[in-house]
Amino acid sequence: PPTAKPPAQVNLWASLAVSETVDITKWLSDPERGLNMTMSDRGSLSDNILFHIEAYRPAKADALRYLTSPSDQNLPERFARVTIHHGAASDPYIMDYLVGPLPVSSKTSMRELTEIYHRNPIPYNARGYTAKAFNELDPLIEKIMTPISDIVKELYGNDTLVAAANGPMSFDGSFRRSWVSWRRKVSGPWLHPVGLFQYVDISGPDPSTWKLLKMVYNHQVFPSVESFAEAFHNGTLKRIPHRPDQRDDTSWSTRRRSGPPRDLDHLPGPRAVSFAGLRFRVDRAKQYISWMGWGLYLGFDRDMGMSLWDIRFKDERLIYELSPQEAIAQYAGNDPMQATTAWLDRYFGMGSSVRDMLPGYDCPYEAVYLPATTYTHMGTLRRERAICVFEHDTARPITRHTGYDEDEFGAVRGYVLTVRSIATVGNYDYLFDYIFHLDGTIEVRVSASGYLQGGYWEKSQYNYGTAIRETSMGSLHDHVINFKVDLDVAGTDNSLLFTHTTQEEVEQPWFDEDWGSTVIQQKILRDYIETEDNALLKFPTNFQGGYSFVNKEKKNAWSTPRGYAIHPGYSPVHNTVVGSKRLLNNANWARYNLAVSLRKEQEPTSSSMWNLNLPGAPMVDFHKFFDGENITQKDLVAWVNVGTHHLPQAEDAPNTRTNTATSSFFLTPLNYFDSDVSMDSMNAILLKTP
Amino acid sequence: PPTAKPPAQVNLWASLAVSETVDITKWLSDPERGLNMTMSDRGSLSDNILFHIEAYRPAKADALRYLTSPSDQNLPERFARVTIHHGAASDPYIMDYLVGPLPVSSKTSMRELTEIYHRNPIPYNARGYTAKAFNELDPLIEKIMTPISDIVKELYGNDTLVAAANGPMSFDGSFRRSWVSWRRKVSGPWLHPVGLFQYVDISGPDPSTWKLLKMVYNHQVFPSVESFAEAFHNGTLKRIPHRPDQRDDTSWSTRRRSGPPRDLDHLPGPRAVSFAGLRFRVDRAKQYISWMGWGLYLGFDRDMGMSLWDIRFKDERLIYELSPQEAIAQYAGNDPMQATTAWLDRYFGMGSSVRDMLPGYDCPYEAVYLPATTYTHMGTLRRERAICVFEHDTARPITRHTGYDEDEFGAVRGYVLTVRSIATVGNYDYLFDYIFHLDGTIEVRVSASGYLQGGYWEKSQYNYGTAIRETSMGSLHDHVINFKVDLDVAGTDNSLLFTHTTQEEVEQPWFDEDWGSTVIQQKILRDYIETEDNALLKFPTNFQGGYSFVNKEKKNAWSTPRGYAIHPGYSPVHNTVVGSKRLLNNANWARYNLAVSLRKEQEPTSSSMWNLNLPGAPMVDFHKFFDGENITQKDLVAWVNVGTHHLPQAEDAPNTRTNTATSSFFLTPLNYFDSDVSMDSMNAILLKTP
Ligand SMILES: [Ca+2]
Ligand SMILES: [Ca+2]
Ligand SMILES: [Ca+2]
Ligand SMILES: [Ca+2]
Ligand SMILES: [Cu+2]
Ligand SMILES: [Cu+2]
Repeated sequence: PPTAKPPAQVNLWASLAVSETVDITKWLSDPERGLNMTMSDRGSLSDNILFHIEAYRPAKADALRYLTSPSDQNLPERFARVTIHHGAASDPYIMDYLVGPLPVSSKTSMRELTEIYHRNPIPYNARGYTAKAFNELDPLIEKIMTPISDIVKELYGNDTLVAAANGPMSFDGSFRRSWVSWRRKVSGPWLHPVGLFQYVDISGPDPSTWKLLKMVYNHQVFPSVESFAEAFHNGTLKRIPHRPDQRDDTSWSTRRRSGPPRDLDHLPGPRAVSFAGLRFRVDRAKQYISWMGWGLYLGFDRDMGMSLWDIRFKDERLIYELSPQEAIAQYAGNDPMQATTAWLDRYFGMGSSVRDMLPGYDCPYEAVYLPATTYTHMGTLRRERAICVFEHDTARPITRHTGYDEDEFGAVRGYVLTVRSIATVGNYDYLFDYIFHLDGTIEVRVSASGYLQGGYWEKSQYNYGTAIRETSMGSLHDHVINFKVDLDVAGTDNSLLFTHTTQEEVEQPWFDEDWGSTVIQQKILRDYIETEDNALLKFPTNFQGGYSFVNKEKKNAWSTPRGYAIHPGYSPVHNTVVGSKRLLNNANWARYNLAVSLRKEQEPTSSSMWNLNLPGAPMVDFHKFFDGENITQKDLVAWVNVGTHHLPQAEDAPNTRTNTATSSFFLTPLNYFDSDVSMDSMNAILLKTP
Repeated sequence: PPTAKPPAQVNLWASLAVSETVDITKWLSDPERGLNMTMSDRGSLSDNILFHIEAYRPAKADALRYLTSPSDQNLPERFARVTIHHGAASDPYIMDYLVGPLPVSSKTSMRELTEIYHRNPIPYNARGYTAKAFNELDPLIEKIMTPISDIVKELYGNDTLVAAANGPMSFDGSFRRSWVSWRRKVSGPWLHPVGLFQYVDISGPDPSTWKLLKMVYNHQVFPSVESFAEAFHNGTLKRIPHRPDQRDDTSWSTRRRSGPPRDLDHLPGPRAVSFAGLRFRVDRAKQYISWMGWGLYLGFDRDMGMSLWDIRFKDERLIYELSPQEAIAQYAGNDPMQATTAWLDRYFGMGSSVRDMLPGYDCPYEAVYLPATTYTHMGTLRRERAICVFEHDTARPITRHTGYDEDEFGAVRGYVLTVRSIATVGNYDYLFDYIFHLDGTIEVRVSASGYLQGGYWEKSQYNYGTAIRETSMGSLHDHVINFKVDLDVAGTDNSLLFTHTTQEEVEQPWFDEDWGSTVIQQKILRDYIETEDNALLKFPTNFQGGYSFVNKEKKNAWSTPRGYAIHPGYSPVHNTVVGSKRLLNNANWARYNLAVSLRKEQEPTSSSMWNLNLPGAPMVDFHKFFDGENITQKDLVAWVNVGTHHLPQAEDAPNTRTNTATSSFFLTPLNYFDSDVSMDSMNAILLKTP
């Protein structure tokens, strides 16, 4: 692509270079630090382990100083966030540290990073997986299963089974327990559950103390493997019926092509070609993109992957930060697994779970791919095709009119630029799209694909899902995904405007008796929401109203305060269930369509990777952001949700379809300009009336 | 495009050929008919005039008989609907007639067509315009304005002003009155209102009896032009302030390109090319289209334009009829024009107002265009590019997964076929899109562009809109557009399923004390709606539920009744205002998101062109469809709305943007299949895990 010209030469939100990570690791390992660390690929849970290293974003004030006048002396100091598992402590715990300034030098020091959390330290029982997912459970599983291996073989034949643990594993950090669910080890295992569950206690750093608490087979509960074995041998065990549908060909849970080809499908479909070259610019090293008056930097982190920074349109900063925060998936069901699952996928690292995209399939042929680097406890992970950027013809004019008078007759093509990243967290694929329009509109859209977290289908599951096979089902769940939108509309001093409509009956002197002297009509009300406590928001009934950021002191040419609206797109939903202990306070943002708070350095994000396992006492308690502060002409942040109520259906197999499993919101100018700026497009036509 | 193979050789819903129209006209003019008609281009209001001729659609039973076994003897008889204005009657009225069978022969006869209306005959005061829009008002306007032409010149300088009348013009047919609003005669006149209004009585067929009832200038009401002139001359008239913003360049209300070009905008954007040829088939003569297992016929009529018929997917009929029914736009304001406007655009002929689309701008370069023919009182109107059809790459895989096991890793490209028609009704442009997906999903989407119906901006209009210039504004209004969706899911016997979710607290034997013995979780409820009275529907709060057509007697392989869901898309809204006299009972469908009724030949449509002028006693009273009939395993029709709450903003000038002024719904398989059928796509990739 053509070379970009970033407004500043340093991407302040860039990931750490591998060399920086190496240097920090060395510096941390220095005995002078006194951290007594074991390198993670050798470490056990009762060692001190380096869990994570990544760039820590600069304070906004520092960043804006540099962006206003990009010179070396204005460059903010660079810091890294380091997460250490203190497994060797007498009372094991986890702590985040800030290390810097970077590069490592004699001036480099470290301090505890606690101000962004609502409790400290991080409970050890909420920890992230320290070895390749679930491996730390293997010894316990083996211990449980060995004594009953003959029984399992009798019950399940020659199938190899595979175990997966669910979450949350703790309420407040005081324990770590999980339901282990068994599935057949075939392609698409999530669709092949076998109705066998074990509840295990895996609290603390010593696996020798871990134990089975319960075992459930075909709805029968056993306190131990021995009691399960006894029931099997004495014939009281009620067995799951034979499952012929699961015996044969399991290709239904793969992505193998099936069925007769459709008419003309042997031909390639339409392919977008920019015959005179691409029209967007990319600086690959600085991860800066520009297109048609838009410009932005990219960031990337372990927890949530791609983020967008310093988004400008027509030479004005519009958004300081636009980034996903968390993705919940709360399940329901009549088995111990589905009834207790409430995922917060940040835990697994939606950034580190980004895989290389499939050129031509995940993005059009002309897309430009950008790499991303994250650190994991397995080492540095680099994906060459983590992000794609492409221009797309929406095939719909953005404006048009066929008039009769001069210069009324024409159209402007509706091109957009899409920036995409796809995270595959186990079974699920999340497509994150940021779609930039010519008029200043951005659509933020998440689409889902991948496999369902399936259940064993039987009549008692009727209220919790739908069969996708005779004995497999998809389980009911809600997805809600939260975004941080640090809009800066004509500067950082913004207010939250609630524009809504009502119905009125008014009298007018000009009415005649034919229709009566009054009229019933709509009316617009414009209210500023003054404090955070009133800024936990749902879209009004029938969408009779909406929310926007405006700068009261900056007017457009017609004396209207310049603003940007947060406009609902596809599936504007929030979470359904309120009050579940497994999602008690760790994802309260999901109760709303959006919320607006005062921007704070101590509130950089609405969640944390440990929130999954701390529903009762989360590291980041979103509701605590809302402490009655005034939000008039302040630097504000909108926390905006997308989501879907996923009532699975047969057509979710093998994979969910992105065309209906999709949700979005728009950020769109609201009297920000004096008129529609997409009228400046050269890809326009103006005709004389024929 | 490649040639299509329609399942039957006759398009049962084709428009009349010009020769047929000519023959019918001749036959009607025959003195033997006794109609005493004057040909319309010469006729006055007090003559009998032929207003309209068009094809009348066959009864569904007859059509299905033919489609099941397409032979000449099964071909339904063909009829035309003819509308005659009986202006010469002592009590003038309008009547619809059925004429047939066609072609005209000795067997041809005519009868009154009354069974599709809730009152008969059609009141003369509700009549459609009989000459080029508004011309029939010209003599009255001239009579009113001539005596005050000097005053108008003094008030408005050298501007030429142009008048437009609003609607509804009657409540129940007992009168015909309208507010005439004055605008500057420049390009985009709708944005140049001058604050001058006249209320006129134009009842009955004799223009000599028509008169001015009231005149409003700058909020001052005058019973006559004389009193207005008197106030002007005696200096009591409060004049509208000088409007310098309206004096100069008026290019802001044109589509002229403006502003500096953006970076790289001199290059052409990406262009879709089907390098091996198009993959959809078109039979231009029969107006039949097929693509990737989809097939459908097109119809076209004066009132609402393009309609889709006998839509099949994978060799099964899915929809018998999919057609727009009506488009309302209900306004509000602090002036006599906006406060009294509630358009029903069918009146103007959304079909006859279709203009030729702009290749490359309204549709991509590769689009195939189809013609449409409608009859108007001006004669037969043929548009060569009334409809476009194109395949489009959504640039988003329809499904994808990057797994680890064999055959889990791949993607299917998300191609769609779009069938589009654009109606320009005066100021407004409606883009009708029918978007067909590989998995059986159809998205029905309407986007709006064109000009606002503007107002004169002043402080007292603050609650009714927003300034788009110092002294021009956009006025608050709601759009709602109704579609008839005659889904036939696995046959015509369908039931209406309401699937919704609730929250429950359940006890389970397997829970431990750690989390408590109960769980709060979601639950699915499935209720069949049994009667029409319960089938006037809104989407539930937070979209916690949805509606679908299912055939209880036809199950998929997993014993779930096969169904199709009506799923909300963009902007799933209904009309805001309830109870306004100007929309009292003529568009009651707009109160809901959707409604479901028993399909009837006597209820072919939810509106009529005369509904605009009969809010108190409409020709088609939608609520009368809902008379308590049972809707279990019957042939059902869904009446589904799209819409937008249009709170105008500066960026609506010069034309509204289709990216946010858009609304849609999906028709999508719901356990209709056994699995996702888009997995049969050849445009798929399946990779080994790298
Ligand atoms: Ca606060
Ligand atoms: Ca801000
Ligand atoms: Ca009925
Ligand atoms: Ca039907
Ligand atoms: Cu899901
Ligand atoms: Cu509008």
